[in-house]
Amino acid sequence: MFSKETYVNRRAELKKLVKSGIIILFGNNESPANFPANGYYPFRQDSTFLYYFGPKRDGLVGVIDVDNDKELLIGNDIDIDDIVWYGSVDSVHDMAEHAGVKESAPMKQLQVICDNAMKEKRTIHFLPPYRHDTMIQIFDLLGIHPSKQREAASVELIKAVVKMRSTKEQQEIEEIERACAIGYKMHTTAMRVTKPGVTEKYVGGQVNGIANSYGAMVSFPTIFSQHGEIMHGNPSMAVLESGRLALCDCGGETMEHYCSDNTRTFPVNGKFTQRQLEIYSIVEDCHDLALKISKPGVKYFDVHMDVCRLMTDRLKELGLMMGDTEEAVRAGAHAMFLPHGLGHMMGMDVHDMEGLGQTYVGFDDETRPNLEQFGTNCLRMGRRLEEGFVVTDEPGIYFIPALIDEWRAKGLHKDFINYEKLETYKDFGGIRIEDDILITSDGCRFLGEERIPYHPKDVEDFMSKN
Amino acid sequence: MFSKETYVNRRAELKKLVKSGIIILFGNNESPANFPANGYYPFRQDSTFLYYFGPKRDGLVGVIDVDNDKELLIGNDIDIDDIVWYGSVDSVHDMAEHAGVKESAPMKQLQVICDNAMKEKRTIHFLPPYRHDTMIQIFDLLGIHPSKQREAASVELIKAVVKMRSTKEQQEIEEIERACAIGYKMHTTAMRVTKPGVTEKYVGGQVNGIANSYGAMVSFPTIFSQHGEIMHGNPSMAVLESGRLALCDCGGETMEHYCSDNTRTFPVNGKFTQRQLEIYSIVEDCHDLALKISKPGVKYFDVHMDVCRLMTDRLKELGLMMGDTEEAVRAGAHAMFLPHGLGHMMGMDVHDMEGLGQTYVGFDDETRPNLEQFGTNCLRMGRRLEEGFVVTDEPGIYFIPALIDEWRAKGLHKDFINYEKLETYKDFGGIRIEDDILITSDGCRFLGEERIPYHPKDVEDFMSKN
Repeated sequence: MFSKETYVNRRAELKKLVKSGIIILFGNNESPANFPANGYYPFRQDSTFLYYFGPKRDGLVGVIDVDNDKELLIGNDIDIDDIVWYGSVDSVHDMAEHAGVKESAPMKQLQVICDNAMKEKRTIHFLPPYRHDTMIQIFDLLGIHPSKQREAASVELIKAVVKMRSTKEQQEIEEIERACAIGYKMHTTAMRVTKPGVTEKYVGGQVNGIANSYGAMVSFPTIFSQHGEIMHGNPSMAVLESGRLALCDCGGETMEHYCSDNTRTFPVNGKFTQRQLEIYSIVEDCHDLALKISKPGVKYFDVHMDVCRLMTDRLKELGLMMGDTEEAVRAGAHAMFLPHGLGHMMGMDVHDMEGLGQTYVGFDDETRPNLEQFGTNCLRMGRRLEEGFVVTDEPGIYFIPALIDEWRAKGLHKDFINYEKLETYKDFGGIRIEDDILITSDGCRFLGEERIPYHPKDVEDFMSKN
Repeated sequence: MFSKETYVNRRAELKKLVKSGIIILFGNNESPANFPANGYYPFRQDSTFLYYFGPKRDGLVGVIDVDNDKELLIGNDIDIDDIVWYGSVDSVHDMAEHAGVKESAPMKQLQVICDNAMKEKRTIHFLPPYRHDTMIQIFDLLGIHPSKQREAASVELIKAVVKMRSTKEQQEIEEIERACAIGYKMHTTAMRVTKPGVTEKYVGGQVNGIANSYGAMVSFPTIFSQHGEIMHGNPSMAVLESGRLALCDCGGETMEHYCSDNTRTFPVNGKFTQRQLEIYSIVEDCHDLALKISKPGVKYFDVHMDVCRLMTDRLKELGLMMGDTEEAVRAGAHAMFLPHGLGHMMGMDVHDMEGLGQTYVGFDDETRPNLEQFGTNCLRMGRRLEEGFVVTDEPGIYFIPALIDEWRAKGLHKDFINYEKLETYKDFGGIRIEDDILITSDGCRFLGEERIPYHPKDVEDFMSKN
């Protein structure tokens, strides 16, 4: 947890932004994997609850009564049976005190608070829930069916939370740097244990072990696959083969639940082929371009589009694309190779605040998401960058057999894509390079103390020595 | 997956046992950790769904119409967007075929099936749900509020499933042996990396990494703690100290989702103290006793009680308990040291079928759980053992400061517990030894190829050499 003042100040700011009504922030509960007790997934507190209240225990709800300037931490204390099984924890009263909250109450009080607020026709602000137990809780408290809760969530509250969590405080940046240090260990472990003959699962497992050893958990399920062309390829029991590339996209989460998110693509046998280097160098240059031009005031949508243009130019040189670059990109032909956006916000959630709605987090009145065009519809971040934002820079080039077949059969973008040549790349896989960047006052900087080997030469050197 | 015949035969048997009505078996869905998409926990299919249908994908429901002898696999096929992000998977039709199910249908069909069955006043059998998304699904389908679903679940179906899943088939036993082999690697890794100065979290992370590298995942959240007296102690950032014991309770899960579950307790510095050996040898003898007397026809409740008696005798020799053993055990005084049961069923769930209800899984008409007495109320398995059952044998002795203080203050069992002496053990921690055993035709056998070092001498030898 951060200092008491941190939480007091954040809630004061939130009250100013939301102005009136009563705010309910639901903490998370245990999440059953295959049976109700003991069969849990690792506990993960809700990020917004952590941001304003701090405690990492399940079964808590924070209430901020803006109209009456009252704050309350709600939850039930544990008994001796719980202590025997799970050890002792702070009382709810003590947890409230650590966060500078004056009052605490047992869970049954929450229904009373909601009933009173509804009777007085006051606005009850809650965020769009993403856990189904919270949805049932909201249904019971407020009578709103789970399928209607996302639209019933408070836009004022969403906007206020997004505004505050988007700009990272110094202490948050330090936590993200710590997460990047864990990420460095994860990626260099992957490079160390990758070799022909081991399974994807083996490497993925070792990577997850590092995240568990040095932090809270992985910041998202580790992607490690020879099929880099599958965006979110889970490690399989497939055996790694010499001559192929392995794509590793993973990150760690600190004990304070700040994330890192990096991707590297490297040769299973430690040595890139000429064809792999040709594609790798395009992705590398796209990645560097984004680092060079990202700064306050620039729209991340424009950075994305600049990257798409560069990628198209370079793919034309290789004979995989053709025609006018500007037209190709406007038409979305490049999405054959890059079907996702350049990056996303990162913080306590690896896709920071994604649960609150992409439209509010990555866009604003000036920049609307384009949900119609394949590829561009996956751009998670389009709005103007501001100092203190943390975003990922993650271009990639993929050769997706199913997509090639589908587009070709439909005759899509045939003026821009050389399908004949593309056929010969169907066994290539995919390459993505990703780092986390902090927007500074006049540009941006790479986050993390040491850079995970990145230039092909450095990757090869690292893999031959380790 | 097992062979098509396996699933066909299991469903045929299930239909015979349930006799009439329509059975709905809900597969699991993705489980969000901190936001709806990408922020998932690793997917874990429901065990009973796996048992009767097999596919490991999310978003599926199995329907068995007993009255009309019809079977149906329900789920939506994926589209090109899903293929780009997650790779291609079998169609629902193909998955049905692999399981010998003739029909498949999209998800919207499920509401039609339920509506028709309700109109015809047929019995709709479902199992008690443990995931909140399934609860919402059942609420929408059948109009039963989540808080009423456990009692609305079908007792006939629960009993039939328990009957079938309790006795393990040969191919299931082989899977459990595979899980035990992963568990062996996990435990010996823990022993190898444990040393003064590393954190609990470091060791726990390495153990989790092994489970991830060689199987699907951990079979439950790894317990690794110097505070062995906390039954489910999560690895913390605490540094391991020379002179203390570390308790490691963990298991692996195979790709087919069969579990292992073992516990070892070993000295952080690789060498037991005399005092630790005294307690360890009691737990070891209790563990061996259970292995010796468990066989078909014997109630596991009686095995548990025999272990409690032996433990009490031996604690009396150490001067920690006193008085008549029989009376002490009947009164539950031993629960100061052993506040949990001797073991539980194990299979696809580490506490096998626990979600269906402890009363149905571990007890029967002859043996009812004693829910009133502290300690005995945590006995998960009391009924007569049968050939093919897999159970854990996991006695332990714990010194729980909060429990000592509470019982002493209340004057509980003061004729049986030497509180003066017990005070001097408050810094001891706890010891548990656990292995998985298969009930054979005339006794039982330990599961797993190689035994995780167990006798103190073997533990010390292993730790000094690795």
